[in-house]
Amino acid sequence: MLVLDGLGGLPMDVGGPTALEAAATPNLDRLAREGTTGQTLPVLQGVTPGSGPAHLALFGYDPLRLDVGRGVLEATGVGLRVTKGDVAARGNFCTLDEAGLISDRRAGRLPSEAARPLVDRLRSIEVPNYTIEIRHLREYRFALVARGEGLEADLSDTDPQRVGLAPLEVVPEEPQSLVSAELFNRWIVGSHSVLAEEPQANGLTLRGFSTNPELSQFGPRYGLNAACVAVYPMYRGVAKLVGMEILEFEGEGPAEEFSAIESRWAEFDFAFIHIKATDSRGEDGDFAGKAAVIEEVDRELGQLMDLEPAVLAVTGDHSTPARMRSHSWHPVPLLLWAPDTVRPDRSLDFGERACALGGLGTFPAKSLMALLLAHAGRLSKYGA
Amino acid sequence: MLVLDGLGGLPMDVGGPTALEAAATPNLDRLAREGTTGQTLPVLQGVTPGSGPAHLALFGYDPLRLDVGRGVLEATGVGLRVTKGDVAARGNFCTLDEAGLISDRRAGRLPSEAARPLVDRLRSIEVPNYTIEIRHLREYRFALVARGEGLEADLSDTDPQRVGLAPLEVVPEEPQSLVSAELFNRWIVGSHSVLAEEPQANGLTLRGFSTNPELSQFGPRYGLNAACVAVYPMYRGVAKLVGMEILEFEGEGPAEEFSAIESRWAEFDFAFIHIKATDSRGEDGDFAGKAAVIEEVDRELGQLMDLEPAVLAVTGDHSTPARMRSHSWHPVPLLLWAPDTVRPDRSLDFGERACALGGLGTFPAKSLMALLLAHAGRLSKYGA
Repeated sequence: MLVLDGLGGLPMDVGGPTALEAAATPNLDRLAREGTTGQTLPVLQGVTPGSGPAHLALFGYDPLRLDVGRGVLEATGVGLRVTKGDVAARGNFCTLDEAGLISDRRAGRLPSEAARPLVDRLRSIEVPNYTIEIRHLREYRFALVARGEGLEADLSDTDPQRVGLAPLEVVPEEPQSLVSAELFNRWIVGSHSVLAEEPQANGLTLRGFSTNPELSQFGPRYGLNAACVAVYPMYRGVAKLVGMEILEFEGEGPAEEFSAIESRWAEFDFAFIHIKATDSRGEDGDFAGKAAVIEEVDRELGQLMDLEPAVLAVTGDHSTPARMRSHSWHPVPLLLWAPDTVRPDRSLDFGERACALGGLGTFPAKSLMALLLAHAGRLSKYGA
Repeated sequence: MLVLDGLGGLPMDVGGPTALEAAATPNLDRLAREGTTGQTLPVLQGVTPGSGPAHLALFGYDPLRLDVGRGVLEATGVGLRVTKGDVAARGNFCTLDEAGLISDRRAGRLPSEAARPLVDRLRSIEVPNYTIEIRHLREYRFALVARGEGLEADLSDTDPQRVGLAPLEVVPEEPQSLVSAELFNRWIVGSHSVLAEEPQANGLTLRGFSTNPELSQFGPRYGLNAACVAVYPMYRGVAKLVGMEILEFEGEGPAEEFSAIESRWAEFDFAFIHIKATDSRGEDGDFAGKAAVIEEVDRELGQLMDLEPAVLAVTGDHSTPARMRSHSWHPVPLLLWAPDTVRPDRSLDFGERACALGGLGTFPAKSLMALLLAHAGRLSKYGA
């Protein structure tokens, strides 16, 4: 399952191509001709998903019935253990002005080299009877996990979502989360003295307070020994929460990611390979950049095909049109290739307009796993 | 939301066009090329809906879970108040022969001028401890609302649905509706002496006994201040029951309806514009007439587009093929246009065959409102 994050798009001009359509993708186009295409709905018509629910759907879970918080995704993804009773959160460094109001919600996109020592210093904050583990994510981001008695995660974010306002207090959204709110607020007070003298990162915000959702695991659920190849912690997190093994590798590009799975290919039945840059370029409004990322994936695709997968899905978790600079609700293009079992349609290329006419139709993303298993001959007949 | 009632159709001959395809619709075709198309299922595959459930689905309510009776729709649409505990019904004048059997279920399609004074006279019928309010609808039709203690609406219709039979008694379908049945039967007996000497309308039937369904309202549900432009009471009724303001205007054609919303455009976020004649021509078996109505809408469409809607849906509530002279279960063609946010597909025109290949796919009509809200930028992201 090759996931190009935020793959779906929109034309920049009336009648124009989307980024996927504009990209020269001879290899993907060939797979579309040999295979079949369709469109998936991550959640429901008109609903724009976050990355968590969108990936849960790709992995076959109902995103409307499961609630997996950002905190536990990122913390798990960066290797922190979040067990029953722990509460995880995502943190951002920010810049506060002299009045204590946020002037930059990302501390000038503080680079990782500057953020790492700050995270180390945050470890010195002590709150009696509780332990707090912290790890740096990327740039201005970090994850933390609180452990101790009586913790619950129904807590409000402290990021006011715009500059000119002070960071908010953690507020319990249910009475049973009062203890957790006090814990995190005391920790935040402790951070003030640690960060006070920093020029850029003199403040922080916390969000996505959450516990381990205890998802059913890929092994027993599907009979799959599954691997995850992803750079960003959030996607490693969601994969780990469903029981995938997270592969370690150097580099960030599709070539490095394909090499990572190549070196462990024989050990696994299933691989989730996540390409982040399509979404990032979309969020930046960089149409040409998004198309270039897709072209790079297409160029390197031979390395993946040489592994001779029985079934290959190429899709996104949601759409991120450069035109909108954000996630969107539009259906997600899907290409399904399986030389022995796929029923071909009339698709001539891999693009939104082609996929809208694809043989798989438009269907909920949570059904994709069943399709992959079926095409791999791993599902038995239903009924007599 | 421009609803051409009963829009979907069938070819009259093998290989021929539907009425929508036969109609010359350069403006709708242009919108289809710029926007996207699809098909909606009002209820479920194979289910032919009445107008009530079909419109509830368009407004985003689940037609399988809500039961809104014809009586409350028509009574509300004609301005009668139906509050908790009231029971509403739709009435038809009919012609009885000397033996008291129905010889014409619509009293020779009694014209409104003749029906109105009869409705006035029906107001003289008294049933102790209860009040009955009556209003004329159109031609041979009227609505009535009964108010008083202990009324329930689980009551059978009195129209035997064919000529040669006497009108039926009102029968309680649940024990708690016994009081209501007696009330309506006494009122019907009272109507005999009022109508006895009428040459055409010497009898009546009642149907669609129902109470206020207390639907959730468009304002709190969607954050929309919504207007309804419709000629027929039933559609005004369903719009009013979901909290829309019913606009008053003169005339019946699309030009008058578009003028009605034009004059109040700035006051609303959402407009439901209902064109009845497509369904009427379909019910008449008048294929060319149905196509002509669609062409008239297309000719006048510029007036609507000049208002610069952010999002426009053109669709039907169900299909009414002239070939079948009735509502049908076939999917309903949908055109969605939103210059800033729509993802175009390969649609070249607005018709059933084009919509079956449209980028939105085939989906439940109750999801349409979410799509409209999404394309208007009025929904926030789901999940982390």
